Amino acid sequence: MTGFAIIGHLARTDGSFPLNDLPGSGGRMDVLCRCVNASLFLSHDLRRDTECFLVLCGPPSPVPKTVLFSGSSVRSLSPDERSAGALIKKALDIPCGSEFRDAAPGVSVRKGGLERLAADRTCAVLDEKGTDIRGAGELPDMVVLSDHLNFTDAEEEVLRDCPRFSVGPACLHADQAITVLLNESDRRKCGWK
Amino acid sequence: MTGFAIIGHLARTDGSFPLNDLPGSGGRMDVLCRCVNASLFLSHDLRRDTECFLVLCGPPSPVPKTVLFSGSSVRSLSPDERSAGALIKKALDIPCGSEFRDAAPGVSVRKGGLERLAADRTCAVLDEKGTDIRGAGELPDMVVLSDHLNFTDAEEEVLRDCPRFSVGPACLHADQAITVLLNESDRRKCGWK
Repeated sequence: MTGFAIIGHLARTDGSFPLNDLPGSGGRMDVLCRCVNASLFLSHDLRRDTECFLVLCGPPSPVPKTVLFSGSSVRSLSPDERSAGALIKKALDIPCGSEFRDAAPGVSVRKGGLERLAADRTCAVLDEKGTDIRGAGELPDMVVLSDHLNFTDAEEEVLRDCPRFSVGPACLHADQAITVLLNESDRRKCGWK
Repeated sequence: MTGFAIIGHLARTDGSFPLNDLPGSGGRMDVLCRCVNASLFLSHDLRRDTECFLVLCGPPSPVPKTVLFSGSSVRSLSPDERSAGALIKKALDIPCGSEFRDAAPGVSVRKGGLERLAADRTCAVLDEKGTDIRGAGELPDMVVLSDHLNFTDAEEEVLRDCPRFSVGPACLHADQAITVLLNESDRRKCGWK
């Protein structure tokens, strides 16, 4: 199982944002939609062994929420940003507690953010100064990425002891980094260099 | 200079499609928008040395049109699909002839499709059976990709003698393949393995 978690620092925690304005009203929800698609889509297929956790930290909820897209069971997802956005809205429109609750096939939501996730799973972080993924002995099981903003000091503290990896010399968007990581993973699984 | 050309087999050749329905009314214009963004965006920066050609083959124009995004001069482009879509609409809303005409900074349009492009530039093609890009002596200058549909027989004929490259064992979306290609290019430029 491969997982990605993306921190949406300003991303809405209710479903009130219009699909026509994911970047503005959604709190850069467009970034998170692209990460869902980079994590789960192959050409004419889905990555059934991959999970994508969206950690939404914006208003109006006083605590973060996490929306989980599971490649194993997701349906009705198309690769355009609005499609993922519509499923995120659906997840945010239902009441939720501290355990994942299904909102649609393969899409679930719970209260809690990075701290909870890092307690449940062994995480790694992308960092320009980290180990080049091509030279890494083993690829990480779960990678935490940030949206258009840097990790906060509190997030850095949670992630302090995580191993750090780099995908290359250029500073990429989170969804692009996911694509490069998955390419490295695909190559290893198939015995490519 | 690195260039990508993406064939949009059903993509509208006028600006009448609504930004709220890029996949349907736009003829999978969402695919092309993602390719523009994969070609030109870095985190908080643009790839100023990269060009992205969108070859639009859908209705209503009797001949294809090509919209060119030039990283060197494009402005007012955000990484969400709607933003690229709005600039494509703008380009398709002006009359054009057989030479590129500016529609917005860094965005221009002309009549003509793949045949014209392949006559102007040395092209390469992505192919699962092609040379692995990691082992390629030199990376191609211009790569032609298809949208969600395969190349037509006529397109395959135009591209018949082009060198063929593969980005990995998994069959990816065009925008994902562009991201992997650019990662390989970034690594070579910076002396990474």
